[in-house]
Amino acid sequence: MIIDLLYSRVQEKGPICLGLDTRLEYLPKYLQDSQLSIEEKLYQFNKKIIDETIDLVACYKLQIACYEAFGIEGLKAYSRSLKYIREAKALVIADIKRGDISSTAEMYAKGHFEGDFEADFITVNPYMGIDAISPYFKYLKEGNKGIFVLVKTSNESSKDFQELMVSDCHLYEEVAAKVNEWGKEFIGKSGFSLVGGVVGLTYPEEFKRIEKIAPNTFFLIPGYGAQGGTGENVAELFKNNKCGVINSSREIITAHKGRSEGEDFAIYAKEKVLKMKEDIGGWLR
Amino acid sequence: MIIDLLYSRVQEKGPICLGLDTRLEYLPKYLQDSQLSIEEKLYQFNKKIIDETIDLVACYKLQIACYEAFGIEGLKAYSRSLKYIREAKALVIADIKRGDISSTAEMYAKGHFEGDFEADFITVNPYMGIDAISPYFKYLKEGNKGIFVLVKTSNESSKDFQELMVSDCHLYEEVAAKVNEWGKEFIGKSGFSLVGGVVGLTYPEEFKRIEKIAPNTFFLIPGYGAQGGTGENVAELFKNNKCGVINSSREIITAHKGRSEGEDFAIYAKEKVLKMKEDIGGWLR
Repeated sequence: MIIDLLYSRVQEKGPICLGLDTRLEYLPKYLQDSQLSIEEKLYQFNKKIIDETIDLVACYKLQIACYEAFGIEGLKAYSRSLKYIREAKALVIADIKRGDISSTAEMYAKGHFEGDFEADFITVNPYMGIDAISPYFKYLKEGNKGIFVLVKTSNESSKDFQELMVSDCHLYEEVAAKVNEWGKEFIGKSGFSLVGGVVGLTYPEEFKRIEKIAPNTFFLIPGYGAQGGTGENVAELFKNNKCGVINSSREIITAHKGRSEGEDFAIYAKEKVLKMKEDIGGWLR
Repeated sequence: MIIDLLYSRVQEKGPICLGLDTRLEYLPKYLQDSQLSIEEKLYQFNKKIIDETIDLVACYKLQIACYEAFGIEGLKAYSRSLKYIREAKALVIADIKRGDISSTAEMYAKGHFEGDFEADFITVNPYMGIDAISPYFKYLKEGNKGIFVLVKTSNESSKDFQELMVSDCHLYEEVAAKVNEWGKEFIGKSGFSLVGGVVGLTYPEEFKRIEKIAPNTFFLIPGYGAQGGTGENVAELFKNNKCGVINSSREIITAHKGRSEGEDFAIYAKEKVLKMKEDIGGWLR
């Protein structure tokens, strides 16, 4: 099962998920100023970052919004980046946060588990309930695709709804319980299911509660670094043998800013990944 | 304000929102069997339906999943269909249900309010809270773009989370209250704001509650026809001068099935729209 593969990558390489949330302003000047198309600029940037970091990270995550912003051209860069990662046998999460029902969700599944935009995992939004989740199960049954359901997101206003009390628990706890339940049919040898959860590192107390509610859930964890989550938070979460991947994007892919605007920019991304691994490192030892 | 324009279209043409949730199997056989590319097939189908119905409907809605399913090619058909509708001065809602935060949502705004995928309105998912909504306000301030927030969706499992009790009300009521509050800065002459709500026709009792909670909210209403919503439900909702658009897709765009597989297929779509208008008709008189 692909979740076991992700699990073993974390064991082997540490828990970093490198977010390729690429924006034009992140590009080094030589690339920004080049005569290349937007498609080519975005793709070339990603390719260099991938080449420098592929041995160091558990997986990549592409935020599709950054590519959709540029229409067809942007999505061509998105498609090529996904293909490049998958051809290199690395794992990739498509951060699409789609949430729609039944036959519409089937179309999203087809769109993101096959063809131009094929990824290994996708993120999904649970607001519409099981109708928005079950259409992906067809792919999960084959064992080589997985999903991450938004549970407790890392942003401040996640409290607007996710922290509302529903009878005796918070909404996000109810979502966590459902995520664990939905995953029961898809548990791999690692003990984790193909139905993962997105939980922000910025809410460590809530995270502990979620771990208890959803013991078979592998986590995709945003919020490290700029948003306030620390290596200590990670260590704390992982001490009970829990597993997940810690996403970091901007801090890594803009590490060259102020230091290089040239073709060597990606070595700064690599350096940043190594620093992040060091910061988090304690937990693996 | 564009919500006033949508309001006046409803007054003038009735409340039908025609959903172009186009799938290959919906196409008449002559088009399915043609040598055209998938892009061209999807686009030609939409174009013919639009030509036959443009005088009869308040607006169109494109479910992007149906196009994303075919990758770049599908999205080219999506882009061309949007342009065709907008060039004909008709209004179009992009049913994208995006829900992401801050700078990511800004990228979605750029992607769907500008460029290849420019639409007049988009649908958005509130699960992540105001951080997932406020990035669109920049466009709303200019008055020519609007959003529809998912409140109570028409599917059965909308009960999974949307109906959970949060203190003394349901989650969807809390969302409705926020939607109304978020819209206060963007109210047009019609009394409706640029922050609309998606509420299924399949839950008439809940809808009445929502109308009271969100008096300045214009509604995008799925669930008519196959899902169980009736013309009587519509009449009931609209009797207090409330306003919204009733979405119908499959029943209209597959109306030719069993009757024609040829180039005249779109006249059956037109006929179905007229029937739907007649069914709902009472409310306008």
